[in-house]
Amino acid sequence: MFPEPSAESLAATPAASAVLALLLTEGPLSRVEMARRLDLSSAAVTKVARPFLDAGYLHELASERTAPGAGRPVSPLDVTTDREYFVGVKVTTDGLVDEIVGVLCDLKARVRHSVRHPLADRGPEAVIAALATLVDDLLDSGPEGAGYRGRTRSLGLAISGDVDAAAGVVRLSARLGWRDVPIGRLAAEATGLAVTVENDVKALTVAEHWFGQGVGTDSFALVTVGAGIGCGIVVDGRLLTGAYGVAGEIGHICVDPSGAACRCGGTGCVETVATTGAILEAARAAAGVADLDFASAVEQARAGNEAVREVFARAGTAIGLAVAAMVNIAGPERIVVSGEGLDTYDLFEERIWAAFAAHVFGAAAQCPVIIRPLPFEEWARGAAAASIRALFPQVRTIARVR
Amino acid sequence: MFPEPSAESLAATPAASAVLALLLTEGPLSRVEMARRLDLSSAAVTKVARPFLDAGYLHELASERTAPGAGRPVSPLDVTTDREYFVGVKVTTDGLVDEIVGVLCDLKARVRHSVRHPLADRGPEAVIAALATLVDDLLDSGPEGAGYRGRTRSLGLAISGDVDAAAGVVRLSARLGWRDVPIGRLAAEATGLAVTVENDVKALTVAEHWFGQGVGTDSFALVTVGAGIGCGIVVDGRLLTGAYGVAGEIGHICVDPSGAACRCGGTGCVETVATTGAILEAARAAAGVADLDFASAVEQARAGNEAVREVFARAGTAIGLAVAAMVNIAGPERIVVSGEGLDTYDLFEERIWAAFAAHVFGAAAQCPVIIRPLPFEEWARGAAAASIRALFPQVRTIARVR
Ligand SMILES: [Zn+2]
Ligand SMILES: [Zn+2]
Repeated sequence: MFPEPSAESLAATPAASAVLALLLTEGPLSRVEMARRLDLSSAAVTKVARPFLDAGYLHELASERTAPGAGRPVSPLDVTTDREYFVGVKVTTDGLVDEIVGVLCDLKARVRHSVRHPLADRGPEAVIAALATLVDDLLDSGPEGAGYRGRTRSLGLAISGDVDAAAGVVRLSARLGWRDVPIGRLAAEATGLAVTVENDVKALTVAEHWFGQGVGTDSFALVTVGAGIGCGIVVDGRLLTGAYGVAGEIGHICVDPSGAACRCGGTGCVETVATTGAILEAARAAAGVADLDFASAVEQARAGNEAVREVFARAGTAIGLAVAAMVNIAGPERIVVSGEGLDTYDLFEERIWAAFAAHVFGAAAQCPVIIRPLPFEEWARGAAAASIRALFPQVRTIARVR
Repeated sequence: MFPEPSAESLAATPAASAVLALLLTEGPLSRVEMARRLDLSSAAVTKVARPFLDAGYLHELASERTAPGAGRPVSPLDVTTDREYFVGVKVTTDGLVDEIVGVLCDLKARVRHSVRHPLADRGPEAVIAALATLVDDLLDSGPEGAGYRGRTRSLGLAISGDVDAAAGVVRLSARLGWRDVPIGRLAAEATGLAVTVENDVKALTVAEHWFGQGVGTDSFALVTVGAGIGCGIVVDGRLLTGAYGVAGEIGHICVDPSGAACRCGGTGCVETVATTGAILEAARAAAGVADLDFASAVEQARAGNEAVREVFARAGTAIGLAVAAMVNIAGPERIVVSGEGLDTYDLFEERIWAAFAAHVFGAAAQCPVIIRPLPFEEWARGAAAASIRALFPQVRTIARVR
């Protein structure tokens, strides 16, 4: 059985929660450094850390140095990463293959094991059946005696579409064909784990903010490019959710008033030129090959077919304009542009930069934009990170917790 | 002299600050209702309110009713609005006339008196000289014995451009031709008041959030249309400032990749079609009259000149697209679209709605958009509101203070 007490029962106060979160994301750190960062006294940090040390969530590193004069050793604290594990699962339906991708992560969201299973179909029953097997595979994985099963209580699920995270319900997922599916409850029944359900882009944003490029920032954004164009924005340490559940929705910004009609009812939206599907359709027209597949389109573009190259370049321009609009409006400190579509990013990159540079305003041009592809395992890791994050709902921000 | 103690010395704790801010924006309220709203005990509210009552900032209204059984009267509390006054000043240079507009407001940001003075030129010396006279006029205004002067300590200045509010410095104002002007210090020396300097759009956003359409919302946005296109966004009770000082900058979103070059270096920005200047230039071309003035352009459009009408309509579309992009990204609960340009809003309105409706995403279409013109006095009131707001830096949000 899971060794009690749990991290979240120990992290019931804001100070305790902040100490553990800071060590999770930026440890190891000395008590003095933590006190400074969290605006607490050293004594308070020591007091707060004690129960975590006793419960095996933290440990002291060997003394690094002796404080001059004081004679007391300074031992940084760090999280004991294998004290608890987390399963993260991404349900992926990119038009090419339907599968679920799962990872087992430690407390610092480092992937220890990953598994993929194909989906028989996209219905909730098939997904739950595949999920149960996949979770079993992950919990039984690892070297002899890894003991993943006994130290895992939490499962994070990342699903594209409109997700009610508080209720654990997928309200609408066009790609899965789901409406009002209580996937959180179903997954909990099937696996016996405590389940966090989150929109996949938001989960990935949380993962990057806590455990990736966003560490140490108060505001951060992640843009994903692929079957859809998504964006998660962190402001003042919290994910923007929007008063009506809509925020970071950059896919339907109009980048060309004389452009194509979009499924949303608008005209010339970013998604009409920059999704994998839009690119493929335009590439088929440009190449004059009705059944061209995506890999061949990429090949033709790389081989120098100018018309097909221009299709990718136009997508890059739309992405760059959308990112610039988002930066001008929300003002993040740093951005990651990512997604499955970006493993072909040699075909986009130049235009993304050019359009971003042309439309980002004033000093916001200093905002670093990191472009990189992310495999589906990273999305699953995002789901695991969301389930780690869910243990500490009080913590507002990592950079300047108060 | 100003009657001590001051509101901010009494509002040193978060609870005290929250109680006063809640009454400022939504009073009168009973102690019980305030306790509920602020998640405090009634006893805590009573304790916190006491010093404000003693200092004359609050008063008890006559008992409304007797609590059933308890026998104790329930007397709502309210702010004593004439306990303190605030001066707000907007420096305006819209191309037609350069002037400063000042208002004297009470504690609830209600305008008691307003004055306009022309500016001899746009230099800081001329502005400071005009400011000193204008402040004197305001402080000496009002009925016999109004005593404005003795109860006014604070001056808010609203200036278009890049303002470092913390330092009280205008870093860059293209319209005024200012760079690194320490206007806060200069104004304090000239008037003897404590000066708050803020970007004009941000000041107006704060005023609307605290004392206007934004009351009771956690997230709110204000869009201004005129010589420039501006936007202030409140997220989770705080004005977005952006990691690099840029946020809410919707004027340089690209709405037409084949559009005109913009002063920012981009192409087809909102500002290339929707500012007063851009409209006038396009209207001159459409009408074939090189020296057409703005009033005549409006007249021609209203009289049915289709080419000129279309110029205004195109501006409306660009504004609607920009507002939709902002709503999709930032997810505010409510929006006000305003500005001097909008006194001609019969010429914009239809297209603003159409473009907004076409590009706002999903449930964000529920976000109310309030379109209305604002005279310059409202901008000055915004500056006064910013100086009221400055007394309570700890208060994060009005709707759900914790
Ligand atoms: Zn669309
Ligand atoms: Zn521009």
